[in-house]
Amino acid sequence: MLLTPQAIDRVVTAALAEDAPWGDATSDAFLPEGATATARLVAREPGILSGGEVFARAMSAAHSATVTTLELNDGDLFVPGEVLATVTGPAAGVLLGERVALNLVQRMSGIATATASYVAAVEGTGARIVDTRKTTPGLRALERHAVRSGGGGNHRFSLSDAVLAKDNHLAVLTASGISLTEAILRARARISHTTHLEVEVDRIDQIEPVLAGGVDTIMLDNFSLDELRRGVAIVAGRALIEASGGVNLDTVRAIAETGVDIISVGALTHSARALDLGLDLQVEA
Amino acid sequence: MLLTPQAIDRVVTAALAEDAPWGDATSDAFLPEGATATARLVAREPGILSGGEVFARAMSAAHSATVTTLELNDGDLFVPGEVLATVTGPAAGVLLGERVALNLVQRMSGIATATASYVAAVEGTGARIVDTRKTTPGLRALERHAVRSGGGGNHRFSLSDAVLAKDNHLAVLTASGISLTEAILRARARISHTTHLEVEVDRIDQIEPVLAGGVDTIMLDNFSLDELRRGVAIVAGRALIEASGGVNLDTVRAIAETGVDIISVGALTHSARALDLGLDLQVEA
Amino acid sequence: MLLTPQAIDRVVTAALAEDAPWGDATSDAFLPEGATATARLVAREPGILSGGEVFARAMSAAHSATVTTLELNDGDLFVPGEVLATVTGPAAGVLLGERVALNLVQRMSGIATATASYVAAVEGTGARIVDTRKTTPGLRALERHAVRSGGGGNHRFSLSDAVLAKDNHLAVLTASGISLTEAILRARARISHTTHLEVEVDRIDQIEPVLAGGVDTIMLDNFSLDELRRGVAIVAGRALIEASGGVNLDTVRAIAETGVDIISVGALTHSARALDLGLDLQVEA
Amino acid sequence: MLLTPQAIDRVVTAALAEDAPWGDATSDAFLPEGATATARLVAREPGILSGGEVFARAMSAAHSATVTTLELNDGDLFVPGEVLATVTGPAAGVLLGERVALNLVQRMSGIATATASYVAAVEGTGARIVDTRKTTPGLRALERHAVRSGGGGNHRFSLSDAVLAKDNHLAVLTASGISLTEAILRARARISHTTHLEVEVDRIDQIEPVLAGGVDTIMLDNFSLDELRRGVAIVAGRALIEASGGVNLDTVRAIAETGVDIISVGALTHSARALDLGLDLQVEA
Amino acid sequence: MLLTPQAIDRVVTAALAEDAPWGDATSDAFLPEGATATARLVAREPGILSGGEVFARAMSAAHSATVTTLELNDGDLFVPGEVLATVTGPAAGVLLGERVALNLVQRMSGIATATASYVAAVEGTGARIVDTRKTTPGLRALERHAVRSGGGGNHRFSLSDAVLAKDNHLAVLTASGISLTEAILRARARISHTTHLEVEVDRIDQIEPVLAGGVDTIMLDNFSLDELRRGVAIVAGRALIEASGGVNLDTVRAIAETGVDIISVGALTHSARALDLGLDLQVEA
Amino acid sequence: MLLTPQAIDRVVTAALAEDAPWGDATSDAFLPEGATATARLVAREPGILSGGEVFARAMSAAHSATVTTLELNDGDLFVPGEVLATVTGPAAGVLLGERVALNLVQRMSGIATATASYVAAVEGTGARIVDTRKTTPGLRALERHAVRSGGGGNHRFSLSDAVLAKDNHLAVLTASGISLTEAILRARARISHTTHLEVEVDRIDQIEPVLAGGVDTIMLDNFSLDELRRGVAIVAGRALIEASGGVNLDTVRAIAETGVDIISVGALTHSARALDLGLDLQVEA
Repeated sequence: MLLTPQAIDRVVTAALAEDAPWGDATSDAFLPEGATATARLVAREPGILSGGEVFARAMSAAHSATVTTLELNDGDLFVPGEVLATVTGPAAGVLLGERVALNLVQRMSGIATATASYVAAVEGTGARIVDTRKTTPGLRALERHAVRSGGGGNHRFSLSDAVLAKDNHLAVLTASGISLTEAILRARARISHTTHLEVEVDRIDQIEPVLAGGVDTIMLDNFSLDELRRGVAIVAGRALIEASGGVNLDTVRAIAETGVDIISVGALTHSARALDLGLDLQVEA
Repeated sequence: MLLTPQAIDRVVTAALAEDAPWGDATSDAFLPEGATATARLVAREPGILSGGEVFARAMSAAHSATVTTLELNDGDLFVPGEVLATVTGPAAGVLLGERVALNLVQRMSGIATATASYVAAVEGTGARIVDTRKTTPGLRALERHAVRSGGGGNHRFSLSDAVLAKDNHLAVLTASGISLTEAILRARARISHTTHLEVEVDRIDQIEPVLAGGVDTIMLDNFSLDELRRGVAIVAGRALIEASGGVNLDTVRAIAETGVDIISVGALTHSARALDLGLDLQVEA
Repeated sequence: MLLTPQAIDRVVTAALAEDAPWGDATSDAFLPEGATATARLVAREPGILSGGEVFARAMSAAHSATVTTLELNDGDLFVPGEVLATVTGPAAGVLLGERVALNLVQRMSGIATATASYVAAVEGTGARIVDTRKTTPGLRALERHAVRSGGGGNHRFSLSDAVLAKDNHLAVLTASGISLTEAILRARARISHTTHLEVEVDRIDQIEPVLAGGVDTIMLDNFSLDELRRGVAIVAGRALIEASGGVNLDTVRAIAETGVDIISVGALTHSARALDLGLDLQVEA
Repeated sequence: MLLTPQAIDRVVTAALAEDAPWGDATSDAFLPEGATATARLVAREPGILSGGEVFARAMSAAHSATVTTLELNDGDLFVPGEVLATVTGPAAGVLLGERVALNLVQRMSGIATATASYVAAVEGTGARIVDTRKTTPGLRALERHAVRSGGGGNHRFSLSDAVLAKDNHLAVLTASGISLTEAILRARARISHTTHLEVEVDRIDQIEPVLAGGVDTIMLDNFSLDELRRGVAIVAGRALIEASGGVNLDTVRAIAETGVDIISVGALTHSARALDLGLDLQVEA
Repeated sequence: MLLTPQAIDRVVTAALAEDAPWGDATSDAFLPEGATATARLVAREPGILSGGEVFARAMSAAHSATVTTLELNDGDLFVPGEVLATVTGPAAGVLLGERVALNLVQRMSGIATATASYVAAVEGTGARIVDTRKTTPGLRALERHAVRSGGGGNHRFSLSDAVLAKDNHLAVLTASGISLTEAILRARARISHTTHLEVEVDRIDQIEPVLAGGVDTIMLDNFSLDELRRGVAIVAGRALIEASGGVNLDTVRAIAETGVDIISVGALTHSARALDLGLDLQVEA
Repeated sequence: MLLTPQAIDRVVTAALAEDAPWGDATSDAFLPEGATATARLVAREPGILSGGEVFARAMSAAHSATVTTLELNDGDLFVPGEVLATVTGPAAGVLLGERVALNLVQRMSGIATATASYVAAVEGTGARIVDTRKTTPGLRALERHAVRSGGGGNHRFSLSDAVLAKDNHLAVLTASGISLTEAILRARARISHTTHLEVEVDRIDQIEPVLAGGVDTIMLDNFSLDELRRGVAIVAGRALIEASGGVNLDTVRAIAETGVDIISVGALTHSARALDLGLDLQVEA
């Protein structure tokens, strides 16, 4: 339900208006009236599906008479050649929806598949792989859902729903002559009791003052593996520990093994490769 | 002017509403009233800028009192450490706009930089590198502009503004017993005189019937280098030739050297890696 | 498909909100609960139908329980007294949709009928009657569709999808010391390969420099019949020829007979007379 | 204030998005960077201005750096060749706004000019010329303002703000066995005390029952001149009298002279001819 | 029909987007897939229902598979414990819609119930209780409908649909040296014949000049009971009389007995207490 | 920053469109061209200001030439007769904005004032007064800000940003045979690490199982004072404790003294009385 039907429809409706502001000139010129089509969404490479419902609603938005049957659920693994979904309906409708539906399911499945690699890499450690706010503007709910399809977790959704104080915030405090501990105490008094309070630190000596203020999560940013291990020892369960910075598939296992709770990975969404999925059409005149 | 101020503002306004539906809890909790900031957009890796104006308008949308000075123009090369833009204004405003502004300029500059690699690879041949409709839903105008920043050209913007008949369209014709040539003649009669007519072929023997119908561009899809050369010889200037399929940085030069006019590359936009650009803030209490 | 269901619904929804922002005070005051109605859309003068689907969707938008049966297709001729469509449903719904549905179908049929007169006038010549951008703001897709219903063709849809350089553009070039030919060559290099390039000329001596630059269409603006004939001879098939300016039902045949390919007529849309169609209701309490 | 800035901006913003969804390809291809323009809105035929502010705001919406000076006020008469407004600004901006600004001011001035003819025709009688709901969907506030610019008055704006019971409503009453007088009495009890109550009659014998119910205005629909005179005598000041049906410039004076208070003319808006106004540009490179 | 389906849907869609911008985290975390629910809307205090249809459409908007059966009509009285409506559907959908649906029906029923008290208080007098423009921004149509459910009447809907000149308008006239009578005569000439003209007076000596101008309604603002009686005698049927100011349940009967026609009560909407209605759920796993 | 300028403008723009869809008929009919006004927002009863910025932006939205000076800040106490803000500008603009601006600032100040009473009542105890989701649809951010102006705190903003499992959720678990403790453990594993987890209990014996699952806040719903005290003792600092149900100004002090951390009060927003603030205009012709 992160991804409500309304949220999906807002995206697909706008995308279709962008992709066909005054109709599909090609179908208009080439297709016989009344032609119908059956199309299969087929994997051209292995991966994990995300966005099945998005694909189906894009097709429905393109033409209300299309019917989509999903063969897999979001989060399911597939192999090359596997059929992920089948669509039937007016050929002009299926061709109108094709590009938008593909663009979205390819991107979402790409994110899910990338996420699953990170999740697999840390298996057996206690660390959870989570996303960041480095998502595509306008598609955050879809991309967050894709991270979940790949087995990852979500970080705060937006600036509004959790506090995450970074170096810039801390710098201004120092400039104001307020101690870190004092600043965190004041912040807690101002925020809702339901608002999670997280503070980012760059150095080990910042950890104790932050914990003294009382935080829910402490983010250790760009710490070496050795520093992470020391940080974990210092925190000693007094807050959740998030590692960030320099995380990739080569480094993530070692980071997880330092004992951190959360590893945030911007690359899950900001540099996602669209997965190669194709739509094989069979058009009947 | 592909990218009108209105088009930019639609994107950044929606993105800010997504990223801060009820304000920025962190600034609220941590920043002193009236704190101001100076921030520099700095390159962490080499590349080509695209989206300078988008960055600036995102900052203005976040807070009307921010002032952004762009140090480079879109299309300019930069080196690591180079300052691309400077923003001053209320600290809370700059921090509110930071993520949205960065997400967009990183993505656009990533596309421009990737495009420039392709353009450089074909330098001296007559081929033009162009994008496809495999863009991020909602961001097409921005991503198309980024392709231009990198020296590439644009394909049709949408389904509405040019005809591109693909295998699926041709299949239905065959099923209807209409010849390819006849179908193209009929299509030309139906479309506006300003509408470009392009037809995709998969096999060499389809070229003559397509040319007989009269097209503006013929797309040779997934042709081998040898087939491309034969295709170029057959077309002999009777239409523009677009090569598509299997294009990457390793193959693009050879494809260009076959003599095709246009090479379309979906990867320019569908799998763009966001460039590493950072915002260095100096906050004054 | 120029006229997608989404495009129609955007127009009718906004129109209904304009025409009944807080309901229909008259139905509320006068109609018994549960009254149903059968209404027939009847021609009061001869003409050509356009907007049947628009009429039907306006009724559905006014009340989801209305059912509209279209008796004719767009493009069909009708005589006075002929029934074009029948609607049944809640009386309050039919009366709510009546004015919006009529306003649109009357306007569209007026355009179709006017277009058909022009098309008939040039029958047997090779000229095609097309519209212009002189459409009603907000209704372009509907009015373009109406032109097609009347047998006409469409010009470029907007400023974005084709180039049409006019006297103002050429004037600035001269001021800059750039030759017309050079300017066109540069323009071609900047635009997408799918973008049609048309240049307007006012004088015969501009034709050769324009052709030397290479255009898809040359527009001969406000040429006398004699000048048009000379222009056709000079162009000699090297580009499509569009005549514009001073076109009306008295002059169009002679213009067509000069051998031009395209005749654009602003009056098709900018001064359309709404056709007299009425809605005859039969209300049952 | 019928025409608020917000109402104008809603129309011009949507119109610009329709006319240039992804920029102006021609300016992009032909205009030198930084070219500026001065443009004059010039009358090509005599008429009455309406929409000066709409013209100006369309230009501002096209480019925020344009400056428009209006030389006449709405409602002013002009002669051919007269300059109505002057715009200066970036050439690309002026050309982007040109078509939308012209389409609107031409249509509005056409309505104002037509209205003024009707108003002049009834001068000296007590009759007021008013519009109807037969306006262009989406442009009602603009077209109503234009009617005022031409010296006409407005009828109810929408279905929501006044009651106008027509033959269809009366028919259902008869079917229900409710008398006309009784129905009007009931209606008055249901509506707001600020809601005007008007009832349309087709026959002279309906007048007394309607007046017995108590109406603010009685509409005599499609009455002959003789019937109108008899109707005026019967009503004898007990309600306002509106004449409708069969009104044109040839008949309106005689209708007015029967003594009716209001004459509603659908043609003011439903078949308005756009006035011939041109934009003369002077572009500086 | 004051409350069109479109008007309701605009409100409930926006409200759901506000209340669940990225889904319902609780259902997501706690509910088993496929759980269904039956919920009953139950009164916890006596009152009058308004907003049944709003409640139902909010549930449908939350999940298209919910089915709502309304047990009462708007305007019906209920007692504590009475079941007003029943909803069945996916548990996650019902819980998603619960708060929005309740917030609206509670507020509307609160207004209806308050209105009914005022209406009951003036029973047998000729006075009608009406609302004002002191409604909740965005909810005017719903709140106006609620006033009707409680047996009250509506005043003008907005600034656009009727004239109501207040002390501020009259003050500027005096400053301009225009007499009240003259100002009203001029105003009548400017407005549509369907526009109701009401003028507010603060003193008895203003009544005659206002009537001399000719108004539809005269508002006696903050008059004592004695002044109201004198005002009624002076007006003597020459206009409707509206009393306003200082109206509450203790004073309204006496005000009504002075013989005024209309009593406007801002408190009906600006300080409505939400009625205590609950949603009793029965969830099946 | 809970209340961004964008959030305010969305509300005031929609409210103005609702209150003046086609202008202000009264200003149009009565005000001389160019009349200006000075208006003062004056308190008619004591209270606490909230919505100063909202008032100012509503005036700006009504007319861009209005200038508002706020004399107090949100959260400031005022006495009857005190001037809270001053507006100058075109009289028609000030009158256009008056009702919308007042409706909002009266409602917000009413909420702030009510909240301050609750906050004062619990002064010296450790309890914090917070709001609920029982806000006016569409106005949540404004009403939440008003609660803060009155010294209160905010609960979760929406269904999306925190988990709050209520009796209905727990009931379905029982039905599924899952223990409360197990359900909470599972829920924690599914939600983001930044998502606050709160569970409502109705009985004392539910407290231990809930704490065993590990919650951030436990809500004791409709507990007697004695039960609350026992609950506080049992929880013993293992989670935050929220009391809800049966909270009013008579009971809130005693509830706070039981030692609970949070007291949520639906009445702060769902039954807010609009404060009596007036706009005193001085219009100059």
